[in-house]
Amino acid sequence: MTDQTVPLFDTLVIIGPGLIGSSILRRGMDDRRIARRLVACDISPEVRARVAELGIADVVETDPATAARDADCVIICVPVGAIAMVAAQVMPVMKKGAILSEVGSVKVTVMEAMQPLLARYPDIAFVPAHPMAGTEFSGPDAGFATLFEDRWCLLTPPEHTPEPAITRITALWKMMGARVRCMSVDHHDRVCAIVSHLPHLLAFTICGTADDLADETRSEVLDFAASGFRDFTRIAASDPTMWRDIFLNNREALLDMLDRFIADAQEMGNAIRTGNEDVIVSRIQRGRAIRRSLIENRQA
Amino acid sequence: MTDQTVPLFDTLVIIGPGLIGSSILRRGMDDRRIARRLVACDISPEVRARVAELGIADVVETDPATAARDADCVIICVPVGAIAMVAAQVMPVMKKGAILSEVGSVKVTVMEAMQPLLARYPDIAFVPAHPMAGTEFSGPDAGFATLFEDRWCLLTPPEHTPEPAITRITALWKMMGARVRCMSVDHHDRVCAIVSHLPHLLAFTICGTADDLADETRSEVLDFAASGFRDFTRIAASDPTMWRDIFLNNREALLDMLDRFIADAQEMGNAIRTGNEDVIVSRIQRGRAIRRSLIENRQA
Repeated sequence: MTDQTVPLFDTLVIIGPGLIGSSILRRGMDDRRIARRLVACDISPEVRARVAELGIADVVETDPATAARDADCVIICVPVGAIAMVAAQVMPVMKKGAILSEVGSVKVTVMEAMQPLLARYPDIAFVPAHPMAGTEFSGPDAGFATLFEDRWCLLTPPEHTPEPAITRITALWKMMGARVRCMSVDHHDRVCAIVSHLPHLLAFTICGTADDLADETRSEVLDFAASGFRDFTRIAASDPTMWRDIFLNNREALLDMLDRFIADAQEMGNAIRTGNEDVIVSRIQRGRAIRRSLIENRQA
Repeated sequence: MTDQTVPLFDTLVIIGPGLIGSSILRRGMDDRRIARRLVACDISPEVRARVAELGIADVVETDPATAARDADCVIICVPVGAIAMVAAQVMPVMKKGAILSEVGSVKVTVMEAMQPLLARYPDIAFVPAHPMAGTEFSGPDAGFATLFEDRWCLLTPPEHTPEPAITRITALWKMMGARVRCMSVDHHDRVCAIVSHLPHLLAFTICGTADDLADETRSEVLDFAASGFRDFTRIAASDPTMWRDIFLNNREALLDMLDRFIADAQEMGNAIRTGNEDVIVSRIQRGRAIRRSLIENRQA
């Protein structure tokens, strides 16, 4: 990439400069080989003002259609439930051959909602991406240029997507510092249900369970939160709208994983009830084995 | 404390210099106002050799009774299931008026197992302590002098414990950098069931659930572990024997919390199944509220 004299994109548009979108913009400002012109677009006047103050875009736009008109690539960075609606605003005005992407954490329902638009605008290449990175914070102030460094970005392009579009989105994410892999939307949603969506569901739930306890115990839960509960709440402090959309849009895979998990938790409960030490220890050891594999995979 | 010329203890004995025990020793070596003479005792020749190499004790002993003979204070730092057994070895030889403590994560069953010994050796003051600090690592190499800094240490002394003994153990933990509170053994076990034991049970379980998936998905779970699953496995990488003992010894409170949690998780599953957005969002928001309280309590 070091010899690259022409940027990857002339005009790159980010719709929804929150945690993910503003991190893409920041990386783009730091590395001008990514795009000559970086455009941020948001419906919220507060977000637009903040993006301008932070100086993380060359242009700040209010209307998605205006922003997308000259774009070589538009990346929709809004909650999963709003992606197709935004796509319906930008696709009619986008240039022939331009690339449309999004960064949602769920892919099956997004692809379903996108089908009529993809059929209607066959000259726009659609390359969905899911950068597997994040923090417990949201909004344009939460982003940072190294958010995607050494993290995975999963691409789920539909069949017949032109190869050059996939190559360019792959190049974009590699310039963000990420590792890239392609897979089907179904497979994507199952993998994410177990590695991300179920853990978040459990974390939100345990906070509620603690909150329901008698007042005396509850106040002490806050005082004495050991590392166990603290790690859970770090997960649980994420954006409610984003997670509501993820849960509802990955319903099938998530509920399947939840059923398996509850059955396993009940088995563990039974082993504790009956004092079955072998079952207890073997389950703890499996956790350690997975942890070791994670460390070897440089994801920990 | 700065004017203190006589150490808090003349001879302080740590039986089981693992993560917790070796951290007490390290702090004691750094701050000689804690004890004039620090004794480490372990049944494992490897642990004894390592403690000597690390230079974190003045004396390393093999036999608990030999180690405890001259002690002003003996702290038993072994898994919960072995505490009373070690106590039975040291109490017959301990000096009249000496203090016996332990650092187990469960208190009700330990107190039950200790009752006959406490009745037989009424001149030994028993002050159980639970420093709410830890990492995913174990053994003498895992400890560090600042492990207890700004963490809570819960004391659960039986009724009629001489006040001066409680005062000295409180002073010890304050010199370790911890905040100290006293409570009953029952209350202790309920609070710890929700803040620590249940989160660990869930973390061990989700590792098993992932491990049971079809081979293709499982390998990708390791590749793509997003921050959610990664935080879970950090919790799950703890010592199997220690956690088996904790689960079995806090059975009643833990199974009660597990039942409540599973009911709550199933309700969340139903809200997702039926698309009840209000329930989903309100549960996510409760998680955020608890998280905020934690940050205000400086435990995050």
